[in-house]
Amino acid sequence: VAASLTRVGRLLSGDVRALARAMSAVEGGSSSEAAETLQAVYPRTGRADVIGVTGAPGSGKSTLIGRLVAAFRGRGRRVGVVAVDPSSAFSGGAILGDRVRMQEHATDPDVFIRSMATRGHLGGLARATSDVVDLLDAAGFDPILVETVGVGQDEVEIVRTADAVAVVLVPGMGDDIQALKAGILEIADLFVINKAEREGADRLQADLEAMLALAPAGTSRPPIHRTVAARGEVVEPLADALTALLLSGGPRRATRRRERARARLLTLLGERLLERVGDEALTARALDRLIDDIAERRMDPYTAVQGILERVRVEGR
Amino acid sequence: VAASLTRVGRLLSGDVRALARAMSAVEGGSSSEAAETLQAVYPRTGRADVIGVTGAPGSGKSTLIGRLVAAFRGRGRRVGVVAVDPSSAFSGGAILGDRVRMQEHATDPDVFIRSMATRGHLGGLARATSDVVDLLDAAGFDPILVETVGVGQDEVEIVRTADAVAVVLVPGMGDDIQALKAGILEIADLFVINKAEREGADRLQADLEAMLALAPAGTSRPPIHRTVAARGEVVEPLADALTALLLSGGPRRATRRRERARARLLTLLGERLLERVGDEALTARALDRLIDDIAERRMDPYTAVQGILERVRVEGR
Repeated sequence: VAASLTRVGRLLSGDVRALARAMSAVEGGSSSEAAETLQAVYPRTGRADVIGVTGAPGSGKSTLIGRLVAAFRGRGRRVGVVAVDPSSAFSGGAILGDRVRMQEHATDPDVFIRSMATRGHLGGLARATSDVVDLLDAAGFDPILVETVGVGQDEVEIVRTADAVAVVLVPGMGDDIQALKAGILEIADLFVINKAEREGADRLQADLEAMLALAPAGTSRPPIHRTVAARGEVVEPLADALTALLLSGGPRRATRRRERARARLLTLLGERLLERVGDEALTARALDRLIDDIAERRMDPYTAVQGILERVRVEGR
Repeated sequence: VAASLTRVGRLLSGDVRALARAMSAVEGGSSSEAAETLQAVYPRTGRADVIGVTGAPGSGKSTLIGRLVAAFRGRGRRVGVVAVDPSSAFSGGAILGDRVRMQEHATDPDVFIRSMATRGHLGGLARATSDVVDLLDAAGFDPILVETVGVGQDEVEIVRTADAVAVVLVPGMGDDIQALKAGILEIADLFVINKAEREGADRLQADLEAMLALAPAGTSRPPIHRTVAARGEVVEPLADALTALLLSGGPRRATRRRERARARLLTLLGERLLERVGDEALTARALDRLIDDIAERRMDPYTAVQGILERVRVEGR
């Protein structure tokens, strides 16, 4: 316990090695070290602004985030980045291409970049991301930029509850590429038309405005910003706009934080329940047999689950 | 019960209205109608070949699938399509663009296309997709093509356990767009270079071959096919190759079907456990209070979950 308290103390004082170690523990899953660390730091979280940045692969999100990091650093802030996007330049996930193109902040101790491993979180990607954001928050990083690709189910859930959400679009990428997950446009607090020097930027803006005009009267309309992130153009006003958004957050922010707390509680509960019931209700051999029965169509999964649930008792509320 | 047996009987005889209705029930979630239907049809499933088709948005997966549907129809097969990809032309998910571009099979009773609603499955997208595949299988559709975007966490899990997996790539889309989820190349049984008339097809093929050459000796190397799906070019040989792959499936197929059974059992169990414990351990008011405590940082989610788990008893195995 003493050792873990020291570790937590180092993390809270902003020690990046303690931070990196805690992150590896929470990413790994259910170790008690991870739970203890998060329990210890939790009261010191909730201070950082969480900014979600989402868009299709190829929209230049990572480059834009690199520029935003520089803008926030210029304002004296310590900035965290969590890249959940497998195509992110931060995660070096590009296949057949350059592995890591964005290293300019690599030597700045006041910038901490973490890319989430995109495998090994079976169902727990959202949980692991929330934990990593908490650790950055506790270590004094603020704002924290969370990059997700606007396509996957989990990925959208992750960004949905950020304090502010920027959706990045690009002119002329073709409709099918721009096609984001249903509902992603509705969660935008702000739109960015990146690569705005390209042909089609005016049309994209007009299309967006037409779409936004359909929103019910009284709804606030998300502003549209145009950037050329690769050249660093018009990024400062974007950082200003995000800052203003976060300051004026008010009731919407409270709602989102509640949603985030809810999603967090339920995903963690689901994960733990599955672990415990898996361990306690069935031997490894019985589980294997059940899986064989399902694979061979001797038993359907619904009946199998019913059988397991019959062994679970929940004390009255 | 009589009514539901009739419904199941109609489904098994291939009645598409009964099929569509059962799909809506399973997509809706935990209704007992859905569970009863799946329990009833499960012994009649496992016959269809499930072909996963995945790739980045913009790779032309839907167009390719449209062509494959025609090719399999030409061989007298009844074909099912499940589009999990929000950018799919089948799901009409394109934003700011044409809603549905692929209607050529809409009037063919031996083609059944279902696009999965991309919201409202919190954690259950994989479960709902498996259920829909089973229903198609029970209704006599074979093969069943499952289209997912090769980016999201859930989406990759879904396609990973298909009997055969085709990964679709496109020349000259830029590395970041091509960037698929880590691990997606490893699950490919077959690669398709679509839009192969474009510049860069040779280089993409050379890059792919170089990457595949790194595989350990003795591993089978996935073949690479070039198609121009928009013009229907070279789709017949692709359908042949997929058919051959499925016929030779052997041990790998058995492994995947077991993996599929395992994932299915666990996701369904997780879903049901969360439902039951949520209902029985906490009143709605207590849950709300807990969420408030977490949002206000008075309690961390790990401690909250521990408290709930203490009320759960699992009978010995």
